[in-house]
Amino acid sequence: MKSAQPTRILILGGGFGGVHTALTLEKLLKRELREGTVELGLVSRENYMVFQPMLPEVISGSIGILDTITPIRRLCPATNLYTRTIEKIDLERRCVSVAAGFGSQHRNLPFDHLVIALGNVTSFAGQAGLAEHALPFKYLGDALAVRNRIIHTLEEAAIERDPEMRRTLLTFVVAGGGFSGVEAVAEINDFVRAAAGSFRNLPKDEIRVILLHGGPLILPELPQSLAEFAQRLLMKRGVDIRLDTRLAGATAEAALLAGGDRIATRTLVSTVPSMPNPLVAMLDCKKDRGRIVVDDHLELPDYPGVWAAGDCALITDAKSKEPAPPTAQHATREARCLAENIVASLRGEPKRAFSFHALGKMGSLGHHSAVAEVFGLKISGFLAWWLWRTVYLMKLPGLDRKIRVATDWTLDLILRPDIVQLKTDKPVGIRREHFEPGQVVFREGDRGDWLYVVVDGEVEVLKTIPERGETCLRTLGPGECFGEIALVSDRPRSATVRSLTNVNLLAVDREAFQALFSNLPPLRGFFEQLIDARNK
Amino acid sequence: MKSAQPTRILILGGGFGGVHTALTLEKLLKRELREGTVELGLVSRENYMVFQPMLPEVISGSIGILDTITPIRRLCPATNLYTRTIEKIDLERRCVSVAAGFGSQHRNLPFDHLVIALGNVTSFAGQAGLAEHALPFKYLGDALAVRNRIIHTLEEAAIERDPEMRRTLLTFVVAGGGFSGVEAVAEINDFVRAAAGSFRNLPKDEIRVILLHGGPLILPELPQSLAEFAQRLLMKRGVDIRLDTRLAGATAEAALLAGGDRIATRTLVSTVPSMPNPLVAMLDCKKDRGRIVVDDHLELPDYPGVWAAGDCALITDAKSKEPAPPTAQHATREARCLAENIVASLRGEPKRAFSFHALGKMGSLGHHSAVAEVFGLKISGFLAWWLWRTVYLMKLPGLDRKIRVATDWTLDLILRPDIVQLKTDKPVGIRREHFEPGQVVFREGDRGDWLYVVVDGEVEVLKTIPERGETCLRTLGPGECFGEIALVSDRPRSATVRSLTNVNLLAVDREAFQALFSNLPPLRGFFEQLIDARNK
Repeated sequence: MKSAQPTRILILGGGFGGVHTALTLEKLLKRELREGTVELGLVSRENYMVFQPMLPEVISGSIGILDTITPIRRLCPATNLYTRTIEKIDLERRCVSVAAGFGSQHRNLPFDHLVIALGNVTSFAGQAGLAEHALPFKYLGDALAVRNRIIHTLEEAAIERDPEMRRTLLTFVVAGGGFSGVEAVAEINDFVRAAAGSFRNLPKDEIRVILLHGGPLILPELPQSLAEFAQRLLMKRGVDIRLDTRLAGATAEAALLAGGDRIATRTLVSTVPSMPNPLVAMLDCKKDRGRIVVDDHLELPDYPGVWAAGDCALITDAKSKEPAPPTAQHATREARCLAENIVASLRGEPKRAFSFHALGKMGSLGHHSAVAEVFGLKISGFLAWWLWRTVYLMKLPGLDRKIRVATDWTLDLILRPDIVQLKTDKPVGIRREHFEPGQVVFREGDRGDWLYVVVDGEVEVLKTIPERGETCLRTLGPGECFGEIALVSDRPRSATVRSLTNVNLLAVDREAFQALFSNLPPLRGFFEQLIDARNK
Repeated sequence: MKSAQPTRILILGGGFGGVHTALTLEKLLKRELREGTVELGLVSRENYMVFQPMLPEVISGSIGILDTITPIRRLCPATNLYTRTIEKIDLERRCVSVAAGFGSQHRNLPFDHLVIALGNVTSFAGQAGLAEHALPFKYLGDALAVRNRIIHTLEEAAIERDPEMRRTLLTFVVAGGGFSGVEAVAEINDFVRAAAGSFRNLPKDEIRVILLHGGPLILPELPQSLAEFAQRLLMKRGVDIRLDTRLAGATAEAALLAGGDRIATRTLVSTVPSMPNPLVAMLDCKKDRGRIVVDDHLELPDYPGVWAAGDCALITDAKSKEPAPPTAQHATREARCLAENIVASLRGEPKRAFSFHALGKMGSLGHHSAVAEVFGLKISGFLAWWLWRTVYLMKLPGLDRKIRVATDWTLDLILRPDIVQLKTDKPVGIRREHFEPGQVVFREGDRGDWLYVVVDGEVEVLKTIPERGETCLRTLGPGECFGEIALVSDRPRSATVRSLTNVNLLAVDREAFQALFSNLPPLRGFFEQLIDARNK
């Protein structure tokens, strides 16, 4: 008999934790879901799950862009998927509100059981210039952006006539020597060196791929002998590994190192920073260093029926008493345990405590080699690579994807890497930039496409005056703007602007500037006055 | 012996015309290019050439996103490729200037011979709301945007509770019944109906795919019997074809038809409008309806050494005396003739006049069928589809691509269509919107994420007041703004705003608003005063 009100289970997050919770619940609650006594919902910003371990291969295009990701709908056909942004989690009223879709009204999703599997987010907060100029490496869009940046720099290097600028364009820096940084640098190194073959007039010997690592040996997650193997292999392939070196900041033209050194580059990839999801940070529950504290059953002590798994939860292994590491293997096992415990509590059966010992660790080093530690065995080179591919192919969800990836890998053995640069980004409108003291923002005579507003710091405006040379016309500070003349008149820049201190700027492009300032009369008045005053 | 100064041939445009000119020149001038007596350059905004005929298949994902495009570098290894935006063509000084790359300085490229093959651009100018709300269909990015929009509307329809809104979401409109419109609507129809199978709670019978066509029969390019075959076939597959119906405009929620009717939809694809490339429009040479007039040898009469081919040129066939149609077949033949004539003029040999009779016309109708007219024969159905695939596979440049596309097509016969929505777009910052009279911009109580500036037209601000009901507080016109309170306070919208006339708005999102107005003191002052005044 169908009850009047079904039990509503709501899962937040479409990563390994969230999707595997839904998968397990669909299996265990088959009858209840069919009869409508249980309703299963999942909220995810994207309609797909990213198979993170394969993300680095998107850079080189050795697997198709869409093949690292699986549509959640296909995996969990009995789950209602809400492809929306979560706005607020209300644990007291047991309700989650999600942002509006095409309409303008947001929506409330009440729950009986809630699973929080929201993971971490990347954050460059506190490191000068990284948010503006470093490329993060966590989501699928990030991998595509890295790929496009590499191709773009090769394109430019091929036609650049200034040798210093060309060397800067051909320098690629990855910060962070853990698993994801090492896999990324291996793929970037392979891709850059293979793709360079398709470019005319590109001095291949000027290509530099640099890995920055804060410790004395890369891959601290692995036993020393494997890490040393990986380090030797990468160096042999041409990766310049800088140990005990930390990234401190960035400008558009350089990676800034702790201690004051700088590496001139236009491609800085950083895998290091992550911080708690802001939604988790807003939650009023017990946390430890930003992670939700759960009991042995993965339930929140103060909120029965609310559960957490994956990177956003602090989970203590019931046997080893150690905190569970933030890996996909663990998230998957946590999700299964959690789903079983939800079913147990629905049926009034006893719940089980979470404990899992990782089967092994693997890292791809590109070019048909890898390092792995499985069941205590250490493996490296081609065998490890073969194992890596096989295990991931087995774990890749969905038969469609298995076929597609296997095909990609086969084609990749025959065909050259793809060098198409797929730009789907719309023009930005407004962006932020960071400058070190003494950097040129633009030069007299340049074509001007941006208006700048000083957020903090100080810049000087310089003009070449006959018989006096380069002369400082004025200095500008927070809240002041420059560059507006080139935007309203279509003339080249009438002066050079250089930073005097560390400077953060807001840059507004021509289109956004004209749209805003031609339609808002008070702003137009302000800029007309400013231009008049400066022309005097 | 090497001459002091090589002859510089510069090609503008990376479409069929430009790339085939470079291909032919590389073949004919092999020795000169090797010896350095001739230099070949090509300027293109993208580093790839799009194989336009396969673009519709990107919508359904039946070929990989990257497989419709071929890197120009691979095709033309002896050509210097400049992946830059062209700023100006100076025919007098024989020089082209291109925009800055990573640096801030633009660059001048002088030439001895210039080939203009810049094609057309899409333009919705003059049709109210189309630029803001219709999806164009010309470039690769457009095909991806259409695909993402379709998946997004299906996602939303699956969780929408308002039946009218759901029907709107499940309505897909394509405007233009020529080749590209018909191929697009065929792919959209197949994809929507196949993908819908993966969605729970989606009433399949509410899906409507509509084709608008201004004439009495679709595919005016083809003989009547083939066009009738195609029309019957599409109708059988569920496409609702509206003949003698023209698109007049659009809002975010509807396609507006000439005559006053409207079709509620969130997905309007328009293939119709194109206009001359602005760079061509700026050229000071003889033109006819925006196209560059060339002589029999495809050279500009007033500028020896300057040539034009493809859609941007008005070319009269030397034999038939008819203007050459704007198709890929013709652009390819024109490019070859033009390249041969450049070589002839370098060698002081006689040039040849252009003449070409099209071999045939083909259009895909999706789902393993097509229509074709080849050497005067009319073919339809599966045979035409097989012919279509084979011919295009042969024409697809590069062996890599041939293998990849053949593989895709084979997998497509086995696997289900992919429903992953790949969002790589950054947040927009600033956008334009168009409203008909009486449309609601936002409602009291909605969450507010945008500030609006009235560009033209008039809106009314309405508030529900106890005992008086919905009351008009004020009306706003050009240059006035609304919606700022929700952005500075994070409270829901305090009033409803509705259009009184046709209205064009500029919408600024929360992030752009906060960045601009917290950093520019005069603007902050302006908005603080405005908010004070409205709160009184």
